[in-house]
Amino acid sequence: MYPIIRGASLLAVAGGTILLVAARTTDRSVELRPAIDSGTAKHIILFIGDGMGDSEITIARNYAVGAAGRLAMDALPFTGEYTTYSIAEDDPSKPVYVADSAATGTAWATGSKTSNGRISTSAKTDRDLPTILELAQQRGYATGDVTTAELTDATPAVLAAHVASRSCQGPDDMAQCPQDRKTVGGPGSIAEQMIDRGVDVLLGGGSSRFEQSVSGEQTVAHQASTNGYQLVKTAQALRGVSSSRVLGLFAAGTMTTEWIGQEALPYPSNVKNPQVCETDHRRSQEPSLSEMTAKAIDLLERATRDGAFFLQVEGASIDKQSHAANPCAQIGETIAFDRAVRVGLEYAAAHRDTLLVVAADHGHSGQIVSTPADADHPSGLLSTLLTADRTPMTVSYATAAYHRSQDHTGTQVRIAAQGPQAAAVLGVIDQTDLFRVMARALGASTPPPSSAR
Amino acid sequence: MYPIIRGASLLAVAGGTILLVAARTTDRSVELRPAIDSGTAKHIILFIGDGMGDSEITIARNYAVGAAGRLAMDALPFTGEYTTYSIAEDDPSKPVYVADSAATGTAWATGSKTSNGRISTSAKTDRDLPTILELAQQRGYATGDVTTAELTDATPAVLAAHVASRSCQGPDDMAQCPQDRKTVGGPGSIAEQMIDRGVDVLLGGGSSRFEQSVSGEQTVAHQASTNGYQLVKTAQALRGVSSSRVLGLFAAGTMTTEWIGQEALPYPSNVKNPQVCETDHRRSQEPSLSEMTAKAIDLLERATRDGAFFLQVEGASIDKQSHAANPCAQIGETIAFDRAVRVGLEYAAAHRDTLLVVAADHGHSGQIVSTPADADHPSGLLSTLLTADRTPMTVSYATAAYHRSQDHTGTQVRIAAQGPQAAAVLGVIDQTDLFRVMARALGASTPPPSSAR
Repeated sequence: MYPIIRGASLLAVAGGTILLVAARTTDRSVELRPAIDSGTAKHIILFIGDGMGDSEITIARNYAVGAAGRLAMDALPFTGEYTTYSIAEDDPSKPVYVADSAATGTAWATGSKTSNGRISTSAKTDRDLPTILELAQQRGYATGDVTTAELTDATPAVLAAHVASRSCQGPDDMAQCPQDRKTVGGPGSIAEQMIDRGVDVLLGGGSSRFEQSVSGEQTVAHQASTNGYQLVKTAQALRGVSSSRVLGLFAAGTMTTEWIGQEALPYPSNVKNPQVCETDHRRSQEPSLSEMTAKAIDLLERATRDGAFFLQVEGASIDKQSHAANPCAQIGETIAFDRAVRVGLEYAAAHRDTLLVVAADHGHSGQIVSTPADADHPSGLLSTLLTADRTPMTVSYATAAYHRSQDHTGTQVRIAAQGPQAAAVLGVIDQTDLFRVMARALGASTPPPSSAR
Repeated sequence: MYPIIRGASLLAVAGGTILLVAARTTDRSVELRPAIDSGTAKHIILFIGDGMGDSEITIARNYAVGAAGRLAMDALPFTGEYTTYSIAEDDPSKPVYVADSAATGTAWATGSKTSNGRISTSAKTDRDLPTILELAQQRGYATGDVTTAELTDATPAVLAAHVASRSCQGPDDMAQCPQDRKTVGGPGSIAEQMIDRGVDVLLGGGSSRFEQSVSGEQTVAHQASTNGYQLVKTAQALRGVSSSRVLGLFAAGTMTTEWIGQEALPYPSNVKNPQVCETDHRRSQEPSLSEMTAKAIDLLERATRDGAFFLQVEGASIDKQSHAANPCAQIGETIAFDRAVRVGLEYAAAHRDTLLVVAADHGHSGQIVSTPADADHPSGLLSTLLTADRTPMTVSYATAAYHRSQDHTGTQVRIAAQGPQAAAVLGVIDQTDLFRVMARALGASTPPPSSAR
């Protein structure tokens, strides 16, 4: 089902080709030295696996390609971990150790920490924080924002909108952001701002937000049309798009997951009957994340004369299905995300001036545990899966009670990169540092981090 | 209490000095390119944080230096993650997704996967697997093995002993290893083998194992004396040692933890009354891990004419206190381990030909979770701590029931390195690859990984 590469890494470094390197037995310095590139990037592709901590990556790898297999995202040459904490709304000098996707997205989008729930606005003072997408636009880069969530969900929103609350997704959803309403001179909802910002390629779910009315009969979607956006609603229609300004809305809310399976349950769950995931759950009219990624790259490259672009691609339901304690759906989304990364790696192999980053926004609940026994088993929800190794693997979710939403965790998470500025992700950095890495790749001078945090 | 470095990394790369680098604002390629060193190492120091996954590192950092602070181990320039699975005893072609310290230690000690519980012997076939310490000895390196556990515990044992079961620690403990008894021509218990192997510097706990009789009245400790070892039992005595062959046994079993505090409890635990850890729990007659590390380096450097040595330093009770769901003791051991890493970094800064590696053997249970509320809280054991940020942090343990041993997890874990061959840890590698990295640093040719796994 998925290519297995045992005992080797797919190392897509500078050089225009993807190299199969037997990392186990070779001295890697020969490839790494020239891969350290301190220049600027004509293309930036940022892949965000929402809720994809190191544990979630390992769960997906074990299931899909086996413990000794390797995912596409495992191949990036420069790797580190970054801290993901947010800050308190009432006292921004204090950290909050478990962050949400709004605060974490704001961190790399703006280079500043904020409080949970905020979209590229500052904690307490509610100032708009300039984003990396806006910076890219100023420097003549075409821009794209692709997700399997609603386009107005936190992770895609942070690039192109500034509101006090992630809940303010459409014109009818402004209860938490009275000051941001257009009627009082504000920038409007997230949906409106994404269109007003002129992001070239917008692909994801969330059509219901764009069908809300701005004023009278005019919906956000209408306004997008007026602003020159081609609107598409199906994978088939997306394939035919050639306009460089496209709004693709493929589901009313979150897009369908690729895989499904049984949810995790309290012990004994299915410990004695490991499940195999169903892998054909996505509706055919919805494009896959890799298909959206390939199309976005294709359109963005043709959007400006020099082909320069910034693109963010989010695998959103790794997080959403972790919240739901559904390991098959979670793994399927991780693998779908990894396929999108592979599309990016193939593009980068042919375009050396590409900074490609793969990171998560925060860790999540899932843990790989020993086979539970009557006398001794984890206290949370469990599901056992039969992996590509034809071996049972048990995943535990225990950050919330049964049928409550499982919670994010505060662990540092993996960041990996290749291309110009990529070596800056080595070691332990903070999520806000990613903004500065990308800004340097855009050739922009960046202010030092704020003294607050 | 512990130096706080905000917004900067302690980057100890080539160049003989420890550099404070504002990683957030600088292009790091200038420092990294010369740090890629494909040569051999005169000194290898391997630091193993037992059970120190990325979550455990983050827990300790948040508590001890704050979320924006940095630990010494955060400073290493080359970083990656490695997979830690073991294999099944009855079918070595199958992975076991949650490994123990015997199998994981055997992985880096020998370059081969084995089954849980085995000490540098092969799964199913029970063959002795040559170790990196033995290789170092053959190449004229002095060798050292330092731990806060019993010296005969799995992680120190894998370097210098070959037995079928980790339980076979002393001559009286051979029930699980009948074929390894000296009376039937075997190599004897772990304690006996460590002495027979002639490891130069052995420092840790576990004196009771060495007080067991080999034959008649003769104990393992007696035999060590006969073999030229100087025996010491206190920190004070250790300070006076100048012999290059020393056996330091500072506790009957595991050494005392540095810190103590309240164990994690089912909700509501101390969620509304965050605890502050007591940080002076270690008995004065026991040396700290950093003191043992400094002394080991000092003795090993003088043990051979050219000063070449291989040293492993284990922070053992990060794991043991995670099993016990005791966050204060766990964090204190992580910080004690980090102080030992700092001793290594200082040595490496003055000795560029040092390969210094910091890694874990496997992940563990602890997760940083949101502040639990009545309606919604994790299902396991909780403890809330008041951190260096003067902010509460809640840690959850949910891989076993209350007052049962919390379990390891199967997540990939961090590996970090500097010095010759260090760049080989970038990306995603396997734990067995660490053997080959160190073997290359010793200048030894290494066989490719076995085809089995």
